[in-house]
Amino acid sequence: MALTQAVADAVAGLRRTVADLHRELTRYELVIWTAGNVSARVAGADLMVIKPSGVSYDELGPEKMVVTDLHGNLVDGELAPSSDTAAHAYVYRHMPEVGGVVHTHSPYATAWAARGEPIPCVLTMIADEFGGEIPVGPFAMIGDDSIGRGIVETLRGSRSPAVLMRNHGPFTIGRDARAAVKAAVMVEDVARTVHFAHQLGRPDVIDSGAVDRLYERYQNVYGQ
Amino acid sequence: MALTQAVADAVAGLRRTVADLHRELTRYELVIWTAGNVSARVAGADLMVIKPSGVSYDELGPEKMVVTDLHGNLVDGELAPSSDTAAHAYVYRHMPEVGGVVHTHSPYATAWAARGEPIPCVLTMIADEFGGEIPVGPFAMIGDDSIGRGIVETLRGSRSPAVLMRNHGPFTIGRDARAAVKAAVMVEDVARTVHFAHQLGRPDVIDSGAVDRLYERYQNVYGQ
Amino acid sequence: MALTQAVADAVAGLRRTVADLHRELTRYELVIWTAGNVSARVAGADLMVIKPSGVSYDELGPEKMVVTDLHGNLVDGELAPSSDTAAHAYVYRHMPEVGGVVHTHSPYATAWAARGEPIPCVLTMIADEFGGEIPVGPFAMIGDDSIGRGIVETLRGSRSPAVLMRNHGPFTIGRDARAAVKAAVMVEDVARTVHFAHQLGRPDVIDSGAVDRLYERYQNVYGQ
Amino acid sequence: MALTQAVADAVAGLRRTVADLHRELTRYELVIWTAGNVSARVAGADLMVIKPSGVSYDELGPEKMVVTDLHGNLVDGELAPSSDTAAHAYVYRHMPEVGGVVHTHSPYATAWAARGEPIPCVLTMIADEFGGEIPVGPFAMIGDDSIGRGIVETLRGSRSPAVLMRNHGPFTIGRDARAAVKAAVMVEDVARTVHFAHQLGRPDVIDSGAVDRLYERYQNVYGQ
Repeated sequence: MALTQAVADAVAGLRRTVADLHRELTRYELVIWTAGNVSARVAGADLMVIKPSGVSYDELGPEKMVVTDLHGNLVDGELAPSSDTAAHAYVYRHMPEVGGVVHTHSPYATAWAARGEPIPCVLTMIADEFGGEIPVGPFAMIGDDSIGRGIVETLRGSRSPAVLMRNHGPFTIGRDARAAVKAAVMVEDVARTVHFAHQLGRPDVIDSGAVDRLYERYQNVYGQ
Repeated sequence: MALTQAVADAVAGLRRTVADLHRELTRYELVIWTAGNVSARVAGADLMVIKPSGVSYDELGPEKMVVTDLHGNLVDGELAPSSDTAAHAYVYRHMPEVGGVVHTHSPYATAWAARGEPIPCVLTMIADEFGGEIPVGPFAMIGDDSIGRGIVETLRGSRSPAVLMRNHGPFTIGRDARAAVKAAVMVEDVARTVHFAHQLGRPDVIDSGAVDRLYERYQNVYGQ
Repeated sequence: MALTQAVADAVAGLRRTVADLHRELTRYELVIWTAGNVSARVAGADLMVIKPSGVSYDELGPEKMVVTDLHGNLVDGELAPSSDTAAHAYVYRHMPEVGGVVHTHSPYATAWAARGEPIPCVLTMIADEFGGEIPVGPFAMIGDDSIGRGIVETLRGSRSPAVLMRNHGPFTIGRDARAAVKAAVMVEDVARTVHFAHQLGRPDVIDSGAVDRLYERYQNVYGQ
Repeated sequence: MALTQAVADAVAGLRRTVADLHRELTRYELVIWTAGNVSARVAGADLMVIKPSGVSYDELGPEKMVVTDLHGNLVDGELAPSSDTAAHAYVYRHMPEVGGVVHTHSPYATAWAARGEPIPCVLTMIADEFGGEIPVGPFAMIGDDSIGRGIVETLRGSRSPAVLMRNHGPFTIGRDARAAVKAAVMVEDVARTVHFAHQLGRPDVIDSGAVDRLYERYQNVYGQ
């Protein structure tokens, strides 16, 4: 499949962006060995850029990234795509507003996922970033559309950019890959803090009116 | 607003100091992404130097720092100030002895804050640094004076330079920004150790006479 | 004992491989000080390459590695072999399919080992990598064949490449040293995540049919 | 006080050794800010080399180290000695076999100390390194001989090179400073692993005959 010049340029930029963003996964210790991946939608084409399967984070340069269509078929690249490609592709097909997807097995978020327990909104940071509790998705087998469908069905009814897939781990989405990575960092951080809080008691859940005001403010005023 | 030469010189020094001190927040893993900030009062002026909003710690050079007045209005700098600026400003207006303020969401301290539970004085290090238990401040909305007022009202009645703002996280103060950063490092350290201690039992609280003697000694003899 | 040129070449390559793989043990914080070791079988010879005893990971170049026969007798090298050499050698003598062995005292895996409690298969990652629960081996004294025998007897009846030796710590095996190191990294990761999950409840165990399907798929399609 | 050439040479070597060993405390995250210290006895003189008070680990070159007599009086150096100098000095005066002392507030060991609970011998590593459970010392005020006396009285009746001073933190000893640092690293490691083990149950204590055999073997055969 030949890419137009505009798409080829977009792909080249995203290969670097996606490769670089994997360094945030290792920096925040969200992944070990090769077990986590970032993808980005290619604007203006039914394509995505994703990590190859089983390649060490030390070796992830832009040239190693893989381009597939939104059914996970290889379009450009030398290596086989991530074994989670079908899940990423399903999300891009069904959520047109999503430009980036991240999957990790970050330990605290995965512990909530293992128990199938949503993370309650007990911190202002959760209200700011997730707009309420962080939901749990169904148990799903790996490789076909089951995971993708579970992600989409869970996140459509939520302001949260993160879903805890049962017995598996977190998936996060964002308007672009960087936003999805930020959500992956944040879901582990709040999963950890609320885990600590619950080990010695039960914090009060923030009332929904305050959650709404915190979320609105943060989504509108934070950053540059 | 034109700055006098003396104030401009003080600002230039504090831009570097405050930028550098953010590295202690990442070194001790008190912050993730962009979620924590240091400020310093400008001596001899009603001004403060503070982190810009939503900027990565990797990119925080002196030139990125923002100067505001003590109501949070921008005086110098290209970027919007931290979304916590109102809280820092309130503290400087109401506690003239304070020269530095730090805010983080460090996980163990935030877990105590989530439960609204003060950290009991069960370690000589807590007696040394905090002079007794580390208090909890009220739940407060972000953006107006509520947080600042909660910090000031809580710390005025305490020897502690740290307050655990309920469902939010720790704020610390100091005679300068470095002392406030040290308090942020120490509050997370003791929050963690006492968390561990409480997971498997309940340590004895140090009696108040011993706390006083430890605090007096440490505040007078430690350091160079 | 004179080595043939082919064996000498294999030894030279494995000295570098084994030395380098110890850096994965420190990177993932599976070991402290000198307390953990990697070995590799020399293909085509009854020999193994192993870490020397009591040498810091900072100083572990290829030239420091030790070559022994499969009874732990020194064949090549200046230093005394690891005090765990007998256990490694026993595994190579009794499991011809094994090309690498790793031993650590990684903290979460060792905590399960201390309690003598297998890690239940509550995560898709455990199904993928271990094919079911991660088993416990017997309490055994260090230095003779007791540990090796405990490892072999436990792993022969399991798809798991990891065994939790009671009151001691994990040993892992693989077709080569890199695979055994990957198993050491993975066993600590899932030991940690399931520890966190169990601290606040009990996750559902994945049913054995799903475990089989996940394991088959992962062993066949993952990687390049 | 003039030093003989032999003593001056020994001091010069120990200044470097002690400065360098502090890097192991930060590497293994046993200390934060300036809160932990290493000292070494000067062979052939009633002197010790110790960290200065309140100096950052980033700035600890050999020239910053302080030389005192065994009552803590300054003999050589520009800076005030550690505020824990009296405790180190007491140990050197009363335990002639000790050549190095380390103090940290490493979090897991300090949590056991806060509860006043010895670490039970449930791991072969504890038998190897400590020869039995790791004992608790009394609550003692900082600055005079109370801490030193508590250390000496506790360790005289034990094979352990580590004592958990109640509500305070661990002190460790060794035949030289490196051995004391190793004990500080090891006590935190086993404090952490046994903490994890106890969070989800109670491991069996290793029987005393096995502890004795493990300890004898390890003390005699480990290392080069």
